[in-house]
Amino acid sequence: MSEQLIVGVDLGGTTTKIAFITMDGAISYKWEIPTDNSNEGQNITFNLAKSIDEKIHELNIHKDQLIGIGMGAPGPVDYESGIILNVVNLGWKDNYPLKKSLEEATFLTAAIENDANCAALGEMWQGAGNGAKDLVCVTLGTGVGGGVIANGNIIQGANGAAGEIGHITVIPFGGAPCNCGKTGCLETVASATGIVRLAREEVSKSGSQGELAEKLHTSGKITAKDVFDAARNGDPLAVKVLEEVSFHLGFTLASIANTLNPEKIVLGGGVSKAGDILLNGVQENFERFAFSSVKNSTKIAVATLGNDAGVLGAAWLIKNKLNK
Amino acid sequence: MSEQLIVGVDLGGTTTKIAFITMDGAISYKWEIPTDNSNEGQNITFNLAKSIDEKIHELNIHKDQLIGIGMGAPGPVDYESGIILNVVNLGWKDNYPLKKSLEEATFLTAAIENDANCAALGEMWQGAGNGAKDLVCVTLGTGVGGGVIANGNIIQGANGAAGEIGHITVIPFGGAPCNCGKTGCLETVASATGIVRLAREEVSKSGSQGELAEKLHTSGKITAKDVFDAARNGDPLAVKVLEEVSFHLGFTLASIANTLNPEKIVLGGGVSKAGDILLNGVQENFERFAFSSVKNSTKIAVATLGNDAGVLGAAWLIKNKLNK
Repeated sequence: MSEQLIVGVDLGGTTTKIAFITMDGAISYKWEIPTDNSNEGQNITFNLAKSIDEKIHELNIHKDQLIGIGMGAPGPVDYESGIILNVVNLGWKDNYPLKKSLEEATFLTAAIENDANCAALGEMWQGAGNGAKDLVCVTLGTGVGGGVIANGNIIQGANGAAGEIGHITVIPFGGAPCNCGKTGCLETVASATGIVRLAREEVSKSGSQGELAEKLHTSGKITAKDVFDAARNGDPLAVKVLEEVSFHLGFTLASIANTLNPEKIVLGGGVSKAGDILLNGVQENFERFAFSSVKNSTKIAVATLGNDAGVLGAAWLIKNKLNK
Repeated sequence: MSEQLIVGVDLGGTTTKIAFITMDGAISYKWEIPTDNSNEGQNITFNLAKSIDEKIHELNIHKDQLIGIGMGAPGPVDYESGIILNVVNLGWKDNYPLKKSLEEATFLTAAIENDANCAALGEMWQGAGNGAKDLVCVTLGTGVGGGVIANGNIIQGANGAAGEIGHITVIPFGGAPCNCGKTGCLETVASATGIVRLAREEVSKSGSQGELAEKLHTSGKITAKDVFDAARNGDPLAVKVLEEVSFHLGFTLASIANTLNPEKIVLGGGVSKAGDILLNGVQENFERFAFSSVKNSTKIAVATLGNDAGVLGAAWLIKNKLNK
């Protein structure tokens, strides 16, 4: 084969996902390598370049076919300078010149972006966004992340902190502590962790009974999936937790939509796999709190790319750069 | 004089503001004409063209010096097509081709935008925004309007309904009815009307005393300014109202900033003239609910252009168009 390919990279704390992606957004080949955080992160871009070289040799791809490398990285990024501002898990010091390091290691044009933003761009390009130019992605995982796209571009914000949707306050008084230092953030109720916390609180109330309470009493632990499964079976305690999650999520999405009126709000992450039992409640609350013409035009959808969203969004950075 | 000028127009229900503006954003000359809504709004662009012709004659300006006309209009606008989607007060039917009508009447290149968005663009260009590329403007007047600028451009939204910040819900249960059909919108507590309503509610509570209560009992009416004045004098009832307004406004601005991390949030409209007595409380609540790196980078400022924001933002539309 001789077609042009973009290298898309999704850098995680333990694993780095890599893919060769066509200009049309098709994944030609994808693989993973472990992320080596030792030596102050100095091995990361070197290992990546080595793995790419091995792979093009193996797949009989000419280096000339690779037209650039895009990377999503876990932390706030200054897109123009290509600097990652602070990173907790990767060994790098603050303000690490990631783009430069990537270009020196791979001899390719590079672009970097925050990983949640890359997931949003991936969904815009090839996923649930379906080409929408105005899109908000909310990732409901261990935490709650977000990416905001307007007029086809990621909104970075003054300090790279746009899209911190997980830290919108939903319980102004007496909310649970959040990792960010505040209390009552959306993340404390709508992440997998938050859902489990709410369920544990309900179970600990006197006289709690039913599927979820028994599961916790028997096994000593429950997951967000257990909560959704029990709610599907009509367990009142699980239903109550789900109603609380749906209320806060629907309310917050309506506030965001009243501000931005995006074509789509795409929900991703493990929690979004709950499907209709979550979505229906979210939609109902969204409609209750959205301005009428926003309600009629902003659609809520579930992410479709799963783990591929990050590498696709990273590749889109290069495609977009070349188009300019 | 022979320099290039842009015509900036701020179309209101009763008055149309018009200005000749230089490419640098200086207002060379400004005047007003009444808005004639009769004849299904057919006279509006004709009267405007006539007034511009008279004015260039009077000021000895060559028609060639005018390089375009930008207009802010009260209603949702589709910028690309130049269509105003629906208008309540101007006589036009829905989906009126305003840009086309303006170009036919004036023989100038035209651009139209929603009036709240024009005010935001004006503040970005020449006012409190001070050139910031990421800006949110909130107008606290009879109602509460908004304009969102990201990457230097207005966010329109899927249905032209981005920036409906006044209709973000702040009281999810038992809030006051809003003109939009929902209840508990920001507009019901942070507009001039909302502040008066809150004050009247407080006064109507049994045993209410003090400056504000007496003012209402004596004159039968109070204004938002009365509330701020009484709060400045330490009237407990007025202070309580102000605390409620500041809480909801600060909370909502923090939610918006956690989503967009704009460089500035600019507060305009009559209510913003209250100054520090309002701003301090808003800032305090904003800091309480904003994510740490958002709190450190998003600044709240008061609009500086007053009534000129609209014509300046309208002129910016043309400047921006020519730059592309």
